[in-house]
Amino acid sequence: MAFRIEKDTMGEVKVPADKLWGAQTERSRNNFKIGKPASMPLEVIYGFAYLKKAAAYTNCELGVLPVDKRDLIAQVCDEILEGKHDDQFPLVIWQTGSGTQSNMNVNEVVANRAHQLAGKTIGEGEKTLLPNDDVNKSQSSNDTFPTGMHIAAYKKVVEVTIPGIKQLRDTLKRKSEEFKNVVKIGRTHFMDATPLTLGQEFGGYVSQLDHGLKALHNTLPHLAELALGGTAVGTGLNTPKGYSTRVAEYIASFTKLPFVSAENKFEALAAHDALVETHGALKQLAVSLNKIGNDIRMLASGPRSGIGELNIPANEPGSSIMPGKVNPTQCEALTMVCAQVIGNDMAIAVGGMQGQFELNVFKPVMASNLLESAQLLGDASVSFEEHCASGIEPNQARIDELLKNSLMLVTALNTKIGYYKAAEIANTAHKNGTTLKEEAVNLGYVTAEEFDEWVKPEDMVSSKK
Amino acid sequence: MAFRIEKDTMGEVKVPADKLWGAQTERSRNNFKIGKPASMPLEVIYGFAYLKKAAAYTNCELGVLPVDKRDLIAQVCDEILEGKHDDQFPLVIWQTGSGTQSNMNVNEVVANRAHQLAGKTIGEGEKTLLPNDDVNKSQSSNDTFPTGMHIAAYKKVVEVTIPGIKQLRDTLKRKSEEFKNVVKIGRTHFMDATPLTLGQEFGGYVSQLDHGLKALHNTLPHLAELALGGTAVGTGLNTPKGYSTRVAEYIASFTKLPFVSAENKFEALAAHDALVETHGALKQLAVSLNKIGNDIRMLASGPRSGIGELNIPANEPGSSIMPGKVNPTQCEALTMVCAQVIGNDMAIAVGGMQGQFELNVFKPVMASNLLESAQLLGDASVSFEEHCASGIEPNQARIDELLKNSLMLVTALNTKIGYYKAAEIANTAHKNGTTLKEEAVNLGYVTAEEFDEWVKPEDMVSSKK
Amino acid sequence: MAFRIEKDTMGEVKVPADKLWGAQTERSRNNFKIGKPASMPLEVIYGFAYLKKAAAYTNCELGVLPVDKRDLIAQVCDEILEGKHDDQFPLVIWQTGSGTQSNMNVNEVVANRAHQLAGKTIGEGEKTLLPNDDVNKSQSSNDTFPTGMHIAAYKKVVEVTIPGIKQLRDTLKRKSEEFKNVVKIGRTHFMDATPLTLGQEFGGYVSQLDHGLKALHNTLPHLAELALGGTAVGTGLNTPKGYSTRVAEYIASFTKLPFVSAENKFEALAAHDALVETHGALKQLAVSLNKIGNDIRMLASGPRSGIGELNIPANEPGSSIMPGKVNPTQCEALTMVCAQVIGNDMAIAVGGMQGQFELNVFKPVMASNLLESAQLLGDASVSFEEHCASGIEPNQARIDELLKNSLMLVTALNTKIGYYKAAEIANTAHKNGTTLKEEAVNLGYVTAEEFDEWVKPEDMVSSKK
Amino acid sequence: MAFRIEKDTMGEVKVPADKLWGAQTERSRNNFKIGKPASMPLEVIYGFAYLKKAAAYTNCELGVLPVDKRDLIAQVCDEILEGKHDDQFPLVIWQTGSGTQSNMNVNEVVANRAHQLAGKTIGEGEKTLLPNDDVNKSQSSNDTFPTGMHIAAYKKVVEVTIPGIKQLRDTLKRKSEEFKNVVKIGRTHFMDATPLTLGQEFGGYVSQLDHGLKALHNTLPHLAELALGGTAVGTGLNTPKGYSTRVAEYIASFTKLPFVSAENKFEALAAHDALVETHGALKQLAVSLNKIGNDIRMLASGPRSGIGELNIPANEPGSSIMPGKVNPTQCEALTMVCAQVIGNDMAIAVGGMQGQFELNVFKPVMASNLLESAQLLGDASVSFEEHCASGIEPNQARIDELLKNSLMLVTALNTKIGYYKAAEIANTAHKNGTTLKEEAVNLGYVTAEEFDEWVKPEDMVSSKK
Repeated sequence: MAFRIEKDTMGEVKVPADKLWGAQTERSRNNFKIGKPASMPLEVIYGFAYLKKAAAYTNCELGVLPVDKRDLIAQVCDEILEGKHDDQFPLVIWQTGSGTQSNMNVNEVVANRAHQLAGKTIGEGEKTLLPNDDVNKSQSSNDTFPTGMHIAAYKKVVEVTIPGIKQLRDTLKRKSEEFKNVVKIGRTHFMDATPLTLGQEFGGYVSQLDHGLKALHNTLPHLAELALGGTAVGTGLNTPKGYSTRVAEYIASFTKLPFVSAENKFEALAAHDALVETHGALKQLAVSLNKIGNDIRMLASGPRSGIGELNIPANEPGSSIMPGKVNPTQCEALTMVCAQVIGNDMAIAVGGMQGQFELNVFKPVMASNLLESAQLLGDASVSFEEHCASGIEPNQARIDELLKNSLMLVTALNTKIGYYKAAEIANTAHKNGTTLKEEAVNLGYVTAEEFDEWVKPEDMVSSKK
Repeated sequence: MAFRIEKDTMGEVKVPADKLWGAQTERSRNNFKIGKPASMPLEVIYGFAYLKKAAAYTNCELGVLPVDKRDLIAQVCDEILEGKHDDQFPLVIWQTGSGTQSNMNVNEVVANRAHQLAGKTIGEGEKTLLPNDDVNKSQSSNDTFPTGMHIAAYKKVVEVTIPGIKQLRDTLKRKSEEFKNVVKIGRTHFMDATPLTLGQEFGGYVSQLDHGLKALHNTLPHLAELALGGTAVGTGLNTPKGYSTRVAEYIASFTKLPFVSAENKFEALAAHDALVETHGALKQLAVSLNKIGNDIRMLASGPRSGIGELNIPANEPGSSIMPGKVNPTQCEALTMVCAQVIGNDMAIAVGGMQGQFELNVFKPVMASNLLESAQLLGDASVSFEEHCASGIEPNQARIDELLKNSLMLVTALNTKIGYYKAAEIANTAHKNGTTLKEEAVNLGYVTAEEFDEWVKPEDMVSSKK
Repeated sequence: MAFRIEKDTMGEVKVPADKLWGAQTERSRNNFKIGKPASMPLEVIYGFAYLKKAAAYTNCELGVLPVDKRDLIAQVCDEILEGKHDDQFPLVIWQTGSGTQSNMNVNEVVANRAHQLAGKTIGEGEKTLLPNDDVNKSQSSNDTFPTGMHIAAYKKVVEVTIPGIKQLRDTLKRKSEEFKNVVKIGRTHFMDATPLTLGQEFGGYVSQLDHGLKALHNTLPHLAELALGGTAVGTGLNTPKGYSTRVAEYIASFTKLPFVSAENKFEALAAHDALVETHGALKQLAVSLNKIGNDIRMLASGPRSGIGELNIPANEPGSSIMPGKVNPTQCEALTMVCAQVIGNDMAIAVGGMQGQFELNVFKPVMASNLLESAQLLGDASVSFEEHCASGIEPNQARIDELLKNSLMLVTALNTKIGYYKAAEIANTAHKNGTTLKEEAVNLGYVTAEEFDEWVKPEDMVSSKK
Repeated sequence: MAFRIEKDTMGEVKVPADKLWGAQTERSRNNFKIGKPASMPLEVIYGFAYLKKAAAYTNCELGVLPVDKRDLIAQVCDEILEGKHDDQFPLVIWQTGSGTQSNMNVNEVVANRAHQLAGKTIGEGEKTLLPNDDVNKSQSSNDTFPTGMHIAAYKKVVEVTIPGIKQLRDTLKRKSEEFKNVVKIGRTHFMDATPLTLGQEFGGYVSQLDHGLKALHNTLPHLAELALGGTAVGTGLNTPKGYSTRVAEYIASFTKLPFVSAENKFEALAAHDALVETHGALKQLAVSLNKIGNDIRMLASGPRSGIGELNIPANEPGSSIMPGKVNPTQCEALTMVCAQVIGNDMAIAVGGMQGQFELNVFKPVMASNLLESAQLLGDASVSFEEHCASGIEPNQARIDELLKNSLMLVTALNTKIGYYKAAEIANTAHKNGTTLKEEAVNLGYVTAEEFDEWVKPEDMVSSKK
């Protein structure tokens, strides 16, 4: 492999000749061989591209960067955002906890690529842009990395998570309306209970997701706060006046998202409670989705020895040994995602709680876990919606059979004959394997006519406010 | 011990003669000997007292309960709320997951105590009130327990957690202002960095708590939703028309808190995402407080071999073996609370994710963890404020000494001579154990006068927007 | 209330006259009003009693404590172990993270009670014993608290957790044998699968608990290591030669448990990985028990609309509104305990990871969580065994009905006609609502005689090694 | 793109012509677009390759598979293990929870590649091997996936985790010996305490890792148990007699690792407590490593305003804005890994606790989290060892300075003049900013000669047993 020599403040480093990165990226590659290469999420790199471009525009506007340098930086950033340089960011999550090396990776790639754009050969001639003094001007890793991760996280949440969950929510809502007249047995403690409609059951799922989406929306203002302008410790040292507000405006403009400059830059560098907060809402959604996926798995169980009230799409052969088996595989993928998200929540808490003084150095692990959760929840919701929820149908015969036999319809008699006598009817029917009506009449508590009038499942399901 | 005989639908039970509870409570006492007795939080019992009274008023108003029964129920509930019957609730958290047995405990105590108030002897004569048919009228454990736990949780959060954290926040804010001119060295990666003021450092803490309190407030509307009126499975079976809205109004009136009837009762029984949501915010606050407590512990470390920039109150002898030792004990109590809250968050998630069909049967464990976290965070914040934060003072001599020697002041030269030359100055001074100024002049990059003009710590700390 | 004056190195403190504790305990009471009073587990206090007595014997034997002082200390420790002074330990978990204040609480109670035993009045006359110089001789909080918590944890695990789980394991084993000929349908993905025996199903549970108990036993040697003798930082400063080995022998003798002196005292003070390790095994058992409790809940679901293969004891009325309902309440208590234990595991990890230099100051929160988990798992296992597992019976009629209808018996044909044709038979029977045999013969793949010979559920369940 | 038609029991599917996989793999690719493609760990695929080959040998030996088929299967498995087909396994973690689709992916690739090896063209001519009937013979996804993940996990632990941690442990041990005479101040509660040697401090770390490695080794026997032979539900249906023992022997032989057939196959399919157990030990190691990494970060803090007792290697420029800054980046990478592992532990617990009946369907998420943790801990330990621990040197001047000034040396006087007088000396010196000796003499408690004789740091550090 061919190499060229790159330099930083510590000396010379050999870098693969065909790569745009420089000395500090190469040092990090060599010093942190932990897990898979290039694990630093590209979304964070794209966040950097937005902010480097915004910083260049702001620096230029405030008189500390010439227009030609601004335009070169912006051009490379646009190329990065188009995905043209995805293979130029080889670093891992498990580097310095400030993400300095990924910041420098971006600085170096922008500088070297700009050199090319200026018609020169990397490593030859006077540098067109200096990574630290030009590309990183008015910045520090300490404010760029959290800015990059907020941009990445916000975009992922609004572009993947929320639309994905909404798609599932809307389908469940539609199903809830379709099923509004399907009266079925309820189950509490996994035991037979009084009836409700299948629409009501699905309505509960919709309400969970509505609350979860609201909770997630509540966290966005904190996530929209950007650290940029804080530089090294939050004071904004080495930034021109007006910089932090203006740079946030540029980022908002470039991303078309409502980013603002963080009111308090000291917090914005030293703590990432915004990620803890947003991921808390993702975890809440995971808790909700686990309930939903698990319910549907159980309601569709069978075909002959389970509950069997729902039919779900058969998407693939279910078993490599049991012929003809169809499994609730989308439920399984969804609930596995929920398990991961709940675990990720803890990783983020453990990282978030350990900030020290002016800097939290668990930035990459926090960012990567949040991005993973946000992606997986969105994707899994879409997958579950497309391949399962949208095709759910009630197994009406099974639903009717179970409803008809239920002992818990006796509850309708509470207000007529009292809880104790009603209990006696149910217990007797259970013991004798008979129907409620038989025993209710046998015990002399009601007449057959009264029973038929009072115990109507369809009358037991109307929600009263 | 003397006993009397109580009965329920399963038969007779011997109950201690001096106790107000009945058969089902006694069965639970015997069947669930798990952990310490009476671990079910009294706050939940008080939540029940509010709701039983509200249900009695609503039932009466809607024509299904006579006034005299209403008044008896209300009278006992008031006694419970006054703490007169705290020893009548012997059950544990680890009972049925719907909390049915604690609901019945309250029903039985209300019924038996009402019998006494009616001038009769428990176990003798016709029952004044029936636990199921009167006290529990228009209710089910499935809607009362979540209502009771929401009342308990909401009250705890607004009466203990928020005021406690605000008290700490306000003191930190005051300190932040007091310390606004104390210029000190910053630390990133636990390493020396550019300066900031101690006021700015404390301002970061204030901002963390402000964000955390906002996040906690964001969760309150969900927590304010009450399940009452859903009865067994969410349909509101056996409730009179208009019940659920009216009963929530009564509860709001009795508690003076903005409770409302849950829009969707199916969710309100089957999922407790509201607890997951509120506890998510408590966990966020724990993450914040852990950072704050840990920072202060480290800033106050020493007295001679640590950082020593802060003096904190000496509240007690610190060591049983090392004479004269004073320790950051309030920081330790606070951060231990944070560890507990982070663990509790996981217990709540694990409970919350496992609801099945129409009921989540992890209610008591979810409620007790949330109440514990809310209490501990509030109490620990007050304790930390009173015995530590309010007495924090800067150790000015130490702060000045560390600032004066800092190599990171060199950062101020970046915009004058570039990052590379500045790095050379710092590295040389570090290697030689000299001052920046000496090496800056020696290396010929600046004059002594320029150095003095450009490198002023007090000019490096002004936040720029 | 009457008070007396107690003194420590910081000055005078007013203490309730009828209490045995002294100045430092009282300071802690006032300085740490966090959560419920006296939350420090009594088990830890008893651990202290063992170690203080052992230290007195060792100090005496090694010539640094007179016999009369030894005997007084031992006498009070014995009283504490008899439970005579349980109300003398009012401190909370949320104190200094080294537990110093609880160590001093014990020192003070021992000293003051010894004064009484010596016939004197507390606060009058020359002190019979000095809390620091006599009772705490050759000790530091830093080695006594971890010793006390190891003693408490070890005892709890071997006296409560292991016997409790073994009791459940043995009953499940017995059931497994009773049910060895009950052939039933298997379920994978919650869907019908090939058959197994109910005994095999329960045998899986037994194997889980056997593995869990083995894992728990594996952790005991680490837990048996005692920090005592390390004193302040692990060096054993101020202890006589031979002290640490001897004092561990005394503790082993007094407790009849195989305690040894920790090989490395620096670890024993600065890290509590032994608690992390033991609680890891408790968490594993919680994971196992959650599966078992959940399976049994689901297998017993019904009575008419669930799976209904098991009958479990009806211990109490299940519902306050639905008459005649019986719920799997022991399963619910058990699985709630599992949720708590899983949360506690995280609290312990968060505490354990934050030790600093020579001391971990999350000792009380780690100890209390481990003790809670160990107690709850043991108690819940016993409760579940006594009130549920021991009374489980198969519902043979239901089991036979489900088995007979199963489509997955077709798997037995794989080795005869291949997976594809077998799948076709199952799919056709599913579509037509017919039996496997009908369709197998219709499709011409087997004769009726072949089907009867090849598809025998009872032949499909014999485990082959 | 060119396609060919593949078939399974549900019909035809178009598959990219240049790929070896078949219909079921392609269905899964289309049905589970969740997260990054091909996220199923290759290590699991390699585990499958071992077991498919072992199954083929066993099937042949037991007379149910001809030699030529055995050899073809074995040949493809060897190719897979050589990494020749890494791009033929495109599926994600988030598929069916039994991993059925990855099992089929392997079956299909083996069958199609064997067809090629037999000189034929995929999709043409009679199939050389059938994926279900030949490659999957005597197997089910339900026993192959857990077998594959146990093989993968065991190999990763013994090949990456343990050697990596041992490498770090050995270096810390060497440092501990190198530093055995470096007497330094101890710190408890982050406050100055009595002295110890730097060697003792590092010895504590070694002891933590020794205990952690022992705990990890303790879990290996459970992990060595293989499910293979259980087939669909644990009964071993459709396997020849003697199969399960023999196939485990072949796997042991091929991997040179001590795998055995699981005693209880029902557990081995339905619960993955072995993964919970092994990951519990990984979490314990994460807790230990977090303490170690954090300590070293703090001990190396400075260079001028921190503790500064250690010098660590400067591997890269530390800051993009602060020139000359060197940061403890390896500590940061290590502690970020610890945060991830602690989070992964929760994901695994959440998956492990949710097995149902005969199958746990959280297999892929459990496997992937364990493999990630095992890899990251091993890699991060090596990285930390190579780039940090091996280069740690004491800053002797700083250590001496801090030791000399320490007030906690007064503890040595406890046994001479008692705790109270010693405390008075320390407090007075602290207040006056003087030395212990000055105040000890001033207060008249000791002579200067006595002080010099009694207070010798080097005498305060010898561990006594």
